[in-house]
Amino acid sequence: MRAAVFNEPRSISVADRRDPAIAEPTDAVVRVVLACVCGSDLWFYRGDSPFEPGPIGHEFVGVVEEVGSEVREIKPGDFVVAPFAYSDGTCPNCRHGITTACVSGGFFPVGNGDGGQGEAVRVPLADGTLVPVPGSGHSDEMVASLLALSDVMGTGHHAAVCAHVKEGDTVAVVGDGAVGLCAVLAAKRLGAERIIALSRHAERQKLAREFGATDIVEERGAEATAAVMAMTDGIGVDAALECVGTGQAMETALSILRPGSVVGYVGVPHGVELPVEQLFYGNKGVLGGPAPARAYLPELLEDVLEGRIEPGKVFDFETDLDGIGEAYAAMDERRAIKSLVRVGTA
Amino acid sequence: MRAAVFNEPRSISVADRRDPAIAEPTDAVVRVVLACVCGSDLWFYRGDSPFEPGPIGHEFVGVVEEVGSEVREIKPGDFVVAPFAYSDGTCPNCRHGITTACVSGGFFPVGNGDGGQGEAVRVPLADGTLVPVPGSGHSDEMVASLLALSDVMGTGHHAAVCAHVKEGDTVAVVGDGAVGLCAVLAAKRLGAERIIALSRHAERQKLAREFGATDIVEERGAEATAAVMAMTDGIGVDAALECVGTGQAMETALSILRPGSVVGYVGVPHGVELPVEQLFYGNKGVLGGPAPARAYLPELLEDVLEGRIEPGKVFDFETDLDGIGEAYAAMDERRAIKSLVRVGTA
Repeated sequence: MRAAVFNEPRSISVADRRDPAIAEPTDAVVRVVLACVCGSDLWFYRGDSPFEPGPIGHEFVGVVEEVGSEVREIKPGDFVVAPFAYSDGTCPNCRHGITTACVSGGFFPVGNGDGGQGEAVRVPLADGTLVPVPGSGHSDEMVASLLALSDVMGTGHHAAVCAHVKEGDTVAVVGDGAVGLCAVLAAKRLGAERIIALSRHAERQKLAREFGATDIVEERGAEATAAVMAMTDGIGVDAALECVGTGQAMETALSILRPGSVVGYVGVPHGVELPVEQLFYGNKGVLGGPAPARAYLPELLEDVLEGRIEPGKVFDFETDLDGIGEAYAAMDERRAIKSLVRVGTA
Repeated sequence: MRAAVFNEPRSISVADRRDPAIAEPTDAVVRVVLACVCGSDLWFYRGDSPFEPGPIGHEFVGVVEEVGSEVREIKPGDFVVAPFAYSDGTCPNCRHGITTACVSGGFFPVGNGDGGQGEAVRVPLADGTLVPVPGSGHSDEMVASLLALSDVMGTGHHAAVCAHVKEGDTVAVVGDGAVGLCAVLAAKRLGAERIIALSRHAERQKLAREFGATDIVEERGAEATAAVMAMTDGIGVDAALECVGTGQAMETALSILRPGSVVGYVGVPHGVELPVEQLFYGNKGVLGGPAPARAYLPELLEDVLEGRIEPGKVFDFETDLDGIGEAYAAMDERRAIKSLVRVGTA
């Protein structure tokens, strides 16, 4: 099969690789239909995080080709969404809803060999990991929204869940990447009344508003803090969703949070510090981490299929597997919010 | 009046001071019946935190002597509990339940002049701050439990609330001081099924068990972590309550927490670091701060008056105002869990 591989910073190519095959009786092999590029992929693409040369990608939807002898729920021919981590669904951490801490689980492509950005993937723990999509003949737009459940929408939702967003809240979202935009959508879905999106890009502001943002703050740093505090009578927001992962983004999120509230953070931390005295004396909390996208999939899938949310709108660049390098470059250069890669057909 | 004053580390004396008087129309003057020494008082007593020489103390119950012209709810003769911070009860932060972040509030004795460890205290924002105790003729034991609502019980409860302790949970409490013991009681009250108290003192273990601890771990550091992880099948606890404020206590609390859970922390941080990567990749959160004891008072008061909780049992040393130096020394030397100071009569 053909699959994208990372060579070195800013060098991605498509290589021939061995076809995935069942290795464990709990495996499935999935033929990829759609894949995409994650904001977190840019960390290694830019050389900001160490990464082994080899297969890449962790978001995909596709068709099950083959299953191992112990797979009971997933069947060949199923059209499935794969979350970015595999998990057994039965261990205590999975039962508590943190499938990204599954005691038998792991992340694509580490420990697996296949990334999502290729023609096929061996999926460990298929029954616990994959979620079949009911129905057929879904529109391209809907399939793109299903793909978004693989990571970006579940991650935005995780930020909102961690920050305890509830009916009537005033919520600020720091970061206008695809995750930040999905966090706006998640906050709206959970009943937030006022959603302040911190964004300085016209295209992203437009989508943020479409997703439910009621206010836009274009400033950064201390000026952003001043703007949000002015909008909240000097008290701060009920929940702040930090969707970047930089020190400045966390600083801003903490500074605009009212006492007693929590920053839900999902940006992979790079240079983030948590100032314990500011947190303690302000009664401000932090909670976040790799989103248990699998645990959130059933409820979000239902909303996508019912047309209540359209997270696939974050994809504003599309290519095929041969265009994977350009898919990364477009996001790196901020020409694209998020790149979709059409690998096969359903 | 006579009141305790801090001179320098390990030097506390009783001095004559001007009688408190109404300064603002929202003030009350309260004649102190019972006061006590807080674990946090030991930070300045030991010279570990800077502190201005002068009046001290922030926990007291007493009788209202006089009220300002704008005080509506509190009346002379009321027997009241004073939380350790004063607050208006009407600002957005108070309405959100974080009375320790009241926009008009503050802490005893800073900004006030009178500490709780004296014969009388001017209480700002009396209507928002003080809570009258219904009934009369309460036993000494019950009045001691009412005094515990001034800080220590509300603080233990805050740790449990911040950590989202709920029915059926397995909870670990780090710290066997008076706050830690009250955190055990609070966890039990909120329905925790299994409560692991980290304690190496026989007397404190006994009270921890009386308050609801089901298991005792005597180890510290990595050995404590290993013990708790072994007790929880390697997964960790549903909630960890950090009631010390040292780096080691926070390290232990984070290390025994299962993914998706929160450390509720109420020990004033001294040398605490929050390791963002451990938090993020473990999906572990922190939330805590100065407890909004005032906000918790109504529900806890009801439980004390009904005899459902007896937080006053943390007092195992009693003296009068002249014995205040010994009240500090007994706690400093860990001869006492918490010292009660009998200042006047109801």
